[in-house]
Amino acid sequence: MSAVWMVKVVGLGLVAISLSVELLGWLGRRLRPRKIRNEVLFFPSEMSCVEHIVNPNSPYTCLCPFPHGVETSFSRLLRILLSASSTLDLCVFAFSNMDLCRAVLALHNKGVIMRVLTDKDYAAITGSQIGVLRKAGICVRCDGGSRGSVYMHHKFAVVDGRLLITGSLNWTLQAVQANMENVLVTEEPDLLRPFIKEFDRLWVCNEPGQHHSLGT
Amino acid sequence: MSAVWMVKVVGLGLVAISLSVELLGWLGRRLRPRKIRNEVLFFPSEMSCVEHIVNPNSPYTCLCPFPHGVETSFSRLLRILLSASSTLDLCVFAFSNMDLCRAVLALHNKGVIMRVLTDKDYAAITGSQIGVLRKAGICVRCDGGSRGSVYMHHKFAVVDGRLLITGSLNWTLQAVQANMENVLVTEEPDLLRPFIKEFDRLWVCNEPGQHHSLGT
Repeated sequence: MSAVWMVKVVGLGLVAISLSVELLGWLGRRLRPRKIRNEVLFFPSEMSCVEHIVNPNSPYTCLCPFPHGVETSFSRLLRILLSASSTLDLCVFAFSNMDLCRAVLALHNKGVIMRVLTDKDYAAITGSQIGVLRKAGICVRCDGGSRGSVYMHHKFAVVDGRLLITGSLNWTLQAVQANMENVLVTEEPDLLRPFIKEFDRLWVCNEPGQHHSLGT
Repeated sequence: MSAVWMVKVVGLGLVAISLSVELLGWLGRRLRPRKIRNEVLFFPSEMSCVEHIVNPNSPYTCLCPFPHGVETSFSRLLRILLSASSTLDLCVFAFSNMDLCRAVLALHNKGVIMRVLTDKDYAAITGSQIGVLRKAGICVRCDGGSRGSVYMHHKFAVVDGRLLITGSLNWTLQAVQANMENVLVTEEPDLLRPFIKEFDRLWVCNEPGQHHSLGT
């Protein structure tokens, strides 16, 4: 073989090798699964000051007796909730926790579009924060009114249509500080999508003045 | 270039192409994510006969008035639970549903190793099936006894150390047939592993005669 041909063959080989390396890298990036966020929080949470999370723009230093700057299950839950930038759909049986109420109000004041679904019986008890949300202008619908001792027992939230927060934890002080509880946080589409669909169904079913069937 | 060299170059090219195709196929199979099971069930469940699920070897045809052969959220939950072949770790606040109790007893009789953690107060109320499980020889531990009105409020199960069942649903008739509830079923390791770890922690903490701290 002539020297010219040898150069051509070797040149073509080098081009082929570099193209293959590029292609393999591209395929690797395409086929590697995107890391989907999954997190589990357990309660009771340790006690810590959450003032800097709920009210980050305050010029005052909180002087409460709880440890400051400690990350706990509850501070983590607050941070995840407060990451909402466009919408928050909240479907919760019992809502009496004042820090969670302040977080929801902060989101409302920031312009996040809120829909709150709750249980009619629990919304009426002393300490429930549902009245506070309503007074602030947040759209709240109640479920369970016409069906005796039947509860809207969900405890989930959908943040920006992309993140599901769900578990055993009611939004009460006892659940956060005393009980054994769990909260799952996930972006997994196969888990998220059914909750979005169920929220929309329950929201429509509980439109004031409507009497839709609630059977599933 | 001589004809011999031409044959050699073309031959080498063909070998390189076929090896590349093989390699790309192998990479594709390696990098494609394994499909992880994720499922969501919503309640209340429609009513249907579950006799053929709980007692599949019965020679009798069930004559109950409920629809037969209809798949519902509850029949699905029973099937998933009954798929256990080696272990079932159950951590549930309220357990009074008799069909779920029959399913757990069926697993126990099949030789599945069971650990049941429940709330001390709820275990003592009328209708609780915890006594039935204990009488059958299933290992049960209660939580919450020494801490006043604090609840072991979880509602989760781990099947064979590979599948998590969790949500808002207590194992009661009201939760299954009346309330608005959810159950997530997932094999996702990032969600499953923390629950396995938490179950083991609570199991050790509630060993009879032990007084471990339960703070998290």
